[in-house]
Amino acid sequence: MQIAIVLYPGYTALDIVGPYEVLARLPGTEVVFVAEEPGLVTNDLGSLSLNAVSCLDEVTSPDVVVIGGGPGQLDQMSDGKLHEWLRAVDQTTTWTMSVCTGSLILAAAGILKGRRATTYWLALDQLAEFGVIPTDERVVVDGKYVIGAGVSAGIDAALTLASRLAGEDGAQAVQLIIEYDPQPPFSAGSAATAPPAVVEDVKRTLAGQV
Amino acid sequence: MQIAIVLYPGYTALDIVGPYEVLARLPGTEVVFVAEEPGLVTNDLGSLSLNAVSCLDEVTSPDVVVIGGGPGQLDQMSDGKLHEWLRAVDQTTTWTMSVCTGSLILAAAGILKGRRATTYWLALDQLAEFGVIPTDERVVVDGKYVIGAGVSAGIDAALTLASRLAGEDGAQAVQLIIEYDPQPPFSAGSAATAPPAVVEDVKRTLAGQV
Repeated sequence: MQIAIVLYPGYTALDIVGPYEVLARLPGTEVVFVAEEPGLVTNDLGSLSLNAVSCLDEVTSPDVVVIGGGPGQLDQMSDGKLHEWLRAVDQTTTWTMSVCTGSLILAAAGILKGRRATTYWLALDQLAEFGVIPTDERVVVDGKYVIGAGVSAGIDAALTLASRLAGEDGAQAVQLIIEYDPQPPFSAGSAATAPPAVVEDVKRTLAGQV
Repeated sequence: MQIAIVLYPGYTALDIVGPYEVLARLPGTEVVFVAEEPGLVTNDLGSLSLNAVSCLDEVTSPDVVVIGGGPGQLDQMSDGKLHEWLRAVDQTTTWTMSVCTGSLILAAAGILKGRRATTYWLALDQLAEFGVIPTDERVVVDGKYVIGAGVSAGIDAALTLASRLAGEDGAQAVQLIIEYDPQPPFSAGSAATAPPAVVEDVKRTLAGQV
């Protein structure tokens, strides 16, 4: 089973590596990082680069496609090579997955029309512009589409997908291997639970990036 | 504030990228990926490469050092260049952090002697061989050492460190930015909660790797 993970400049690293760490550990999977140009692709903060081993043209029929988000998503919203590739491979994927604002790229490519989906908490309203039904859940499964909310939600979304690919036992084994027994020291992971001043501070920090 | 994140062949990617995603988002931080040789460093599964921009010699006084784990840790347990570098920079770090079996490398370098620490759940007993006190907690803070348990625990450990570096508000802002409101679909993230058959399966899978 081939899993293609898409990289583009300005991705958020955890959007990519969270799902990678889960899905790459399933038996019988081969993960390939793809980008428009092979080679180093740098993240949103400019200090981390992952290597894309293949260009889009070289990966024509992956079983699973994963696309993440990040401020670089803004430059991937116009139709072009990435959208064409996503539409083409989505014809034959068993599952298509996104994390964070990656769902906006799928939506802009016309892939999620009429489906339920989620995205980064600050971008949820934008899904409706593409005929997608915004859903305020951490992981949304609609047909073969597994859509995670922001950044770290990619781990939960990937475990959900893992259970479809390898059964509950298989997903649980990966969860134990990555010791995913989360114990965040604060309860600030959503706008509903973070202190209001922190929410306002983050909105200011991310203005123009989402 | 300079944060040096160590890469060596065979690291587990989420050990690295979890803490990165938290710490690199703190105001005033500069993250540098370091390795014995600069360039691409490939992970335990062989399908992901991160770029190390600096060799160890080029980073002589980071404020924070982070070292992760993974099967490649087994090749980093003998004294040599990495241990020498860790001992040298640890003299002047404000904080030294590890994730997973990264703590065994710190311990083998003589850095954690007499301190409380944790590591990957399957390796906890090994800490005592180096005069370290094994502690079955997800995040252990002892003096300037912030030690996380396996793989995904690096996110929780980094948020704990973030609160020391940038205050609770600063850590909570990062938690919200990465939407870290974990909702794993299963409760299999520790040997205490995973089904016994899954625990046995994982022990078989990881035999010889920890």
